[in-house]
Amino acid sequence: MEELMEPVRTLIDFKKGVVNPDRIIERRASDMQGMYSDDLALEKLLSQDNPLIYQVREINIPKKSGHIIYSTTIIYPGKVGKEYFMTKGHFHTREDTAEIYFCLEGEGYLLMQTKQGKVSTIHMRPGVLGYIPPYWGHRTINTGKKEFIFLALFPGDAGHNYEVVEKHGFAQIMIEENGKPILKDNPKYTPVSG
Amino acid sequence: MEELMEPVRTLIDFKKGVVNPDRIIERRASDMQGMYSDDLALEKLLSQDNPLIYQVREINIPKKSGHIIYSTTIIYPGKVGKEYFMTKGHFHTREDTAEIYFCLEGEGYLLMQTKQGKVSTIHMRPGVLGYIPPYWGHRTINTGKKEFIFLALFPGDAGHNYEVVEKHGFAQIMIEENGKPILKDNPKYTPVSG
Repeated sequence: MEELMEPVRTLIDFKKGVVNPDRIIERRASDMQGMYSDDLALEKLLSQDNPLIYQVREINIPKKSGHIIYSTTIIYPGKVGKEYFMTKGHFHTREDTAEIYFCLEGEGYLLMQTKQGKVSTIHMRPGVLGYIPPYWGHRTINTGKKEFIFLALFPGDAGHNYEVVEKHGFAQIMIEENGKPILKDNPKYTPVSG
Repeated sequence: MEELMEPVRTLIDFKKGVVNPDRIIERRASDMQGMYSDDLALEKLLSQDNPLIYQVREINIPKKSGHIIYSTTIIYPGKVGKEYFMTKGHFHTREDTAEIYFCLEGEGYLLMQTKQGKVSTIHMRPGVLGYIPPYWGHRTINTGKKEFIFLALFPGDAGHNYEVVEKHGFAQIMIEENGKPILKDNPKYTPVSG
């Protein structure tokens, strides 16, 4: 038998996320270049400020099969042009692995997409658990007026592939029109061949 | 590629558990024979009534590697003799798999044990996430006055092994003494050889 791991106790504040994370990852507007449909709006925003878009609070769990890695994400409210603040989004390196997002606070959308360009969304509010099956890339979007907070869980050996999203984008984007979030085709999207 | 699974949206009421489960499993006092240290107390309870000890509300997720199966459990408040209402407890068939319990409501204990008899506990209250690493058997115990509710998540290929607990018991039990929960050696426990 491999070395025995001791149990871990993590306190999660439903309105703040993981209380004493092992690591905090912050993504600011400057980390999101090329991700939004309106490059000029991002440029303009960066000329004034470099706001925090989202923060991930992680716990150290072995990146191995059989484990479940967990973290909380806070997406702050805001927009780049008409497009809501969102995460970069990713596929998994081991493509046949799922992920779970469990909403604790605020509201938003879970946007999912296969490499073949099929799109699906789940409206998230406290208590909604979104199950992202294997092969679906995923991104979360804060369409509300306050912080959107969720618990994320995925297999230890899932791995992250950000490259596909950076290179091809998502087929659809979520923008505000007449004060409401709507899904539109992403003019920057390029299909993933194969 | 195997057949593509569609995303799943599950609503979880923090005070009741999964709202529209695919399956509900109920364990009554009569399902727990031999599990409590005080057989006479269970017999006496069953001569009057057959109370519900706990209820699991499950969602259908493929029992395959790469998936994460989730459910909520409600353990009702109560005791069999001095011993608090609890789940049967189990090990995983694939022993190198973890499990996560995330407390939504009430309070209690997560009792863990290796096959070598090493014991560990985590006090659960809303917001506490207990990480049960690979190789640790686990049981939950309601030591509070109201329903103890938690979200459970484990790898799709973990599998359940109830036999070890049924045959050997846990090394320790949680009983009420002077109005407080304390951990005591289980007189019925027999070590797992090997």
